[in-house]
Amino acid sequence: MAIRYPNGKLYTPNHSAQKAEKKSNNKDLSFSNRGKTLEDEINEANDYYIKRRLAIIHKKPVPVQIVKVEYPSRSAAVIREAYFRTPSTTDYNGVWNGHYIDFDAKETASKTSFPLKNIHEHQMTHMQQVTEQHGVAFIIVRFSAHERYFIVPYEVLQKAWQAMENGNRKSIPLSTIEQEAYEIPTNYYPRIDYLPIIQQLIDAKCYRSESEEK
Amino acid sequence: MAIRYPNGKLYTPNHSAQKAEKKSNNKDLSFSNRGKTLEDEINEANDYYIKRRLAIIHKKPVPVQIVKVEYPSRSAAVIREAYFRTPSTTDYNGVWNGHYIDFDAKETASKTSFPLKNIHEHQMTHMQQVTEQHGVAFIIVRFSAHERYFIVPYEVLQKAWQAMENGNRKSIPLSTIEQEAYEIPTNYYPRIDYLPIIQQLIDAKCYRSESEEK
Repeated sequence: MAIRYPNGKLYTPNHSAQKAEKKSNNKDLSFSNRGKTLEDEINEANDYYIKRRLAIIHKKPVPVQIVKVEYPSRSAAVIREAYFRTPSTTDYNGVWNGHYIDFDAKETASKTSFPLKNIHEHQMTHMQQVTEQHGVAFIIVRFSAHERYFIVPYEVLQKAWQAMENGNRKSIPLSTIEQEAYEIPTNYYPRIDYLPIIQQLIDAKCYRSESEEK
Repeated sequence: MAIRYPNGKLYTPNHSAQKAEKKSNNKDLSFSNRGKTLEDEINEANDYYIKRRLAIIHKKPVPVQIVKVEYPSRSAAVIREAYFRTPSTTDYNGVWNGHYIDFDAKETASKTSFPLKNIHEHQMTHMQQVTEQHGVAFIIVRFSAHERYFIVPYEVLQKAWQAMENGNRKSIPLSTIEQEAYEIPTNYYPRIDYLPIIQQLIDAKCYRSESEEK
């Protein structure tokens, strides 16, 4: 069932998608991709993977702080007062062939770079912790103006984040992303088939840790 | 902040814990463990693990279907109508030393067996899928009458579930759990330190698959 805000705007229960939508130009988004959000596209891929038993990756529910619940007789409990909470983790996680997979989805309307303000500090901390435990942490970035999608490994984010904290630029240039991240080609169905790209990321990681390069 | 139902009862945002609480005798529970729910105890252990960088395991938020949101000027959005949804996965997941960990928490007031009606069919499906992807799937069961805790591996549940579907008993006897599951000893802090027990489970799995026993 589609949920609408009082002003008629469609509700999408994803904080990052919501924010990206607000920041970017709605007309651009719907024109470039038939109105599908990045969240819709990732959910489509995840459903596809689960049905074919390829991977078990789910979006986490939106965290809400429930304050008031009513119990009408003979019907379901109704939450009458609740507030959105800031998630302490990324939005998606699961397992694929023994690998723990953990990521967030971010959209940007920028044509030239990915602004780091799209990522919260606690999400960086979470991805760091996951990496320490040998999980695979990354973000999927959509450049909506170009209709291009990338898997940006945590290590790439971390380098840019560190640079920002040292007073350097607050975004990752698209050119850097083209070099250091992994582009997801778009298909008919699922539109973003990101699983084979994660394999590339894992292979590169193993190669790097074995050869001690970089 | 503690949330209370209109009748003054404390709200715990965990479906399984809620159900267990309703089914079991509240007086027994609070007497035997100072009123802490199993969820509290698992959260305590998870916090402990995250702070010491031992494992990254979180409880998933309670899934709610949001129907109506209000935007009072100059204050946070308020959810005015929402409903509890049935989760499609287990409540806890995360990563530990490269292993994907996935489990649910179940309490029973029974003194002699764990009733399988505490587990939903979709949770069995989810744990099956996780196992296929080489994740570690199990439930943590608390026998509240005895104050005993067990990690029951998916394989043990699956065998009992299959037997139930073939018309046999609808519960797992405590004696079987004592033999085939892994008991979690209780400590002072964290009360249930379940991580070392998961290692036992993983070791036993490796042993079983190597020797092809059982």
